[in-house]
Amino acid sequence: MIDIKCKIWFEENGEPIMGSGRIKLLLAIDSFGSISEAAKQMNMSYKKAWKLIKTINENHGTALIERTTGGKGGGGTVITSEGKRIIAQYEMVKNKMKERISILQEEINALP
Amino acid sequence: MIDIKCKIWFEENGEPIMGSGRIKLLLAIDSFGSISEAAKQMNMSYKKAWKLIKTINENHGTALIERTTGGKGGGGTVITSEGKRIIAQYEMVKNKMKERISILQEEINALP
Repeated sequence: MIDIKCKIWFEENGEPIMGSGRIKLLLAIDSFGSISEAAKQMNMSYKKAWKLIKTINENHGTALIERTTGGKGGGGTVITSEGKRIIAQYEMVKNKMKERISILQEEINALP
Repeated sequence: MIDIKCKIWFEENGEPIMGSGRIKLLLAIDSFGSISEAAKQMNMSYKKAWKLIKTINENHGTALIERTTGGKGGGGTVITSEGKRIIAQYEMVKNKMKERISILQEEINALP
């Protein structure tokens, strides 16, 4: 039986800025408050994670993730409100595509 | 501005059997009647193309492409009717997903 598979990502100016892997990294950074801890958990080098974040921020123009200083807990690296907005857009698109795929999957399964 | 990107492929038993690259290869083989000519045109080694075809055929169970002998032109490697059926299914799914993405793209563009 055939399974329809789909990978979705966002690009800006021809460069990828958001996808399921990047979102995992952003959420991990936000949760640990630290790029190095998040990178460790994702078996990624700190350098690779840092470069990825830098590229995402630069391509988008507005920072999706940034380092804060001071405040409760002494600051850390967190997802910005713009980052949350883009993640929410991606999840919306992904969920709507998933629904569409379920319907197409049933159509394909019903074919002779 | 964010562009929604999507890659679609078919799997069977967890193995990829059809995607846009594979379809290009199948159509090239069918058009040349030859795996080696098609591989050359796609800058792929003959071995890689041959292995890909073998894997696709094996994973699907029924041959999607096969070598014919004799007949007008002396035979050649062509897409089977089962191959054509699966390609048509893939194109149908791809086109419906494209339509869906256009709508989602407009929704995203309209967001503040």
